[in-house]
Amino acid sequence: MTEPVSAVPAPAPSMSARLIDGKAFAAAMTQRIAAEVHAFHDRYRVTPGLAVVLVGNDPASEVYVRNKALQTHRAGMRSFMHMLPATTSQAELLALVRRLNDDPEIHGILVQLPLPAGLDPVAVTNAIRPEKDVDGLGEVNAGRLALGQPGIVPCTPLGCLMLLKSELGDLRGLHAVVIGASNLVGKPMAQLLLAEGCTVSVGHIDTRDPAALARQGDILVVATGVGGLVRGDWIKPGATVIDVGITRVTLPSGKTRLIGDVAFDEAVARAGRITPVPGGVGPMTIACLLNNTLAAARQIVGAAADPGGTP
Amino acid sequence: MTEPVSAVPAPAPSMSARLIDGKAFAAAMTQRIAAEVHAFHDRYRVTPGLAVVLVGNDPASEVYVRNKALQTHRAGMRSFMHMLPATTSQAELLALVRRLNDDPEIHGILVQLPLPAGLDPVAVTNAIRPEKDVDGLGEVNAGRLALGQPGIVPCTPLGCLMLLKSELGDLRGLHAVVIGASNLVGKPMAQLLLAEGCTVSVGHIDTRDPAALARQGDILVVATGVGGLVRGDWIKPGATVIDVGITRVTLPSGKTRLIGDVAFDEAVARAGRITPVPGGVGPMTIACLLNNTLAAARQIVGAAADPGGTP
Repeated sequence: MTEPVSAVPAPAPSMSARLIDGKAFAAAMTQRIAAEVHAFHDRYRVTPGLAVVLVGNDPASEVYVRNKALQTHRAGMRSFMHMLPATTSQAELLALVRRLNDDPEIHGILVQLPLPAGLDPVAVTNAIRPEKDVDGLGEVNAGRLALGQPGIVPCTPLGCLMLLKSELGDLRGLHAVVIGASNLVGKPMAQLLLAEGCTVSVGHIDTRDPAALARQGDILVVATGVGGLVRGDWIKPGATVIDVGITRVTLPSGKTRLIGDVAFDEAVARAGRITPVPGGVGPMTIACLLNNTLAAARQIVGAAADPGGTP
Repeated sequence: MTEPVSAVPAPAPSMSARLIDGKAFAAAMTQRIAAEVHAFHDRYRVTPGLAVVLVGNDPASEVYVRNKALQTHRAGMRSFMHMLPATTSQAELLALVRRLNDDPEIHGILVQLPLPAGLDPVAVTNAIRPEKDVDGLGEVNAGRLALGQPGIVPCTPLGCLMLLKSELGDLRGLHAVVIGASNLVGKPMAQLLLAEGCTVSVGHIDTRDPAALARQGDILVVATGVGGLVRGDWIKPGATVIDVGITRVTLPSGKTRLIGDVAFDEAVARAGRITPVPGGVGPMTIACLLNNTLAAARQIVGAAADPGGTP
């Protein structure tokens, strides 16, 4: 456990929330994964491999994909990049996914979303073999999560859950409120919190009084993509706040700055613990991708080496 | 829409909730399905077929299975019963499922749960081809529901949703509270309500103040299996209450009676609308099984007859 970080004293009588240092947590996790990758290679003579597929030239996606590849490589795994032109057809993309499915050197496959118009992200995501679907976004892994069966969990909500458990320990009986109901974050997050024994409420764009809903949360996870949506009075005093949002805003000076979905300066005076933006949830997403890739390699290689054993 | 049913005047100043007549709704639905089965046969010369598999001699399961087979037959579909001894091995059961998967006369497969000890219900359920998984309990259909993609929805929550939409119309923005978080009812119910635009809260055995949670619900769905758990003061005045529970209790006279998870006499004075037990949700479950079997046949036969068309 890290010590409370509270560099700037808040004006009395406000409290000041403990900052949840996702960057440090992710760094420690990545280091641990690198050691485990080494031990895995010693045992099986196999290096976990991640294939990342990018279609088209979206600049943000290019940054994400490069960063994922770099970190995979740094953790001692193999990283394979497939960068295809925006003119790639659905059939060509599916053929690539099938080749990667059958490639024994690849244990994880990630197709960066969004795909260019004309390509069907659902069909492509579902074409990835569930054992290699390290983003956990295919129908089989979504189903396993919904049913409480072992599977691969999407990286961002998994990272949020790791931070919550590290901060709070057992979550059973806590009321967790999730604002935002996307397939990528909000919905799998709700499933994970339910599996931990939380009472779970999910709010979204159609929720009539989101502030009153949010204020019930011992845990509040916000993933809406609307910068600064959640104000101080949405937060139950002492709550643990996980801010998944990340929006670049331009200041009056012309400089840009990254902000979260939570109005941080207000929230920090009410919450018990809160993730900063940047440096909170963000770094956890890639660390969880490495975690999922190693886990997939263990599952695939372990099952082949020891077919009678339980994984 | 049926007219309000309120035979016995409640003592003033209590209100008396409108009863939601699931029995009548299910009967009308079954009649409509029978007509559609007829039209389907006229078009494709195929009769939808449902295979029901029962392993062992659980008396309640025998009643359920017989009832399902009978209703299927009455709706003009083919009904195939496979009743296996409790000594059936996992391999034998999986082999049967595979045969049914490949049988072109079978469009729906249902393996009655619970299975006898020693058989793995997860492996068996997931072995059913998703297109024939008319109970919607396999990982692929659970994933499709979680991701908001077209798939087969479990019968009981689907029946609850049909009643709610028939009573309330558009559910968007309503706060729905689901008490009970099972894979069979509570969890898929929450997903369905979220997909309808409800704010959704899920409570369960670990929820600290279930009454306060329940009291927020414009819609309250209860599926806990604990007879009479939900008291009158758990209900928001005017709420729509769906009672999925069904428990047989013995009265002081020695007679037995079926009760729901909701203390009906108390609830009827607070709720705006409520399903009775029996005659509420129960009849909807089988009607939805028939609905899912016809839909599966349409999907399988339609796709084969018109491979280029959208389903």
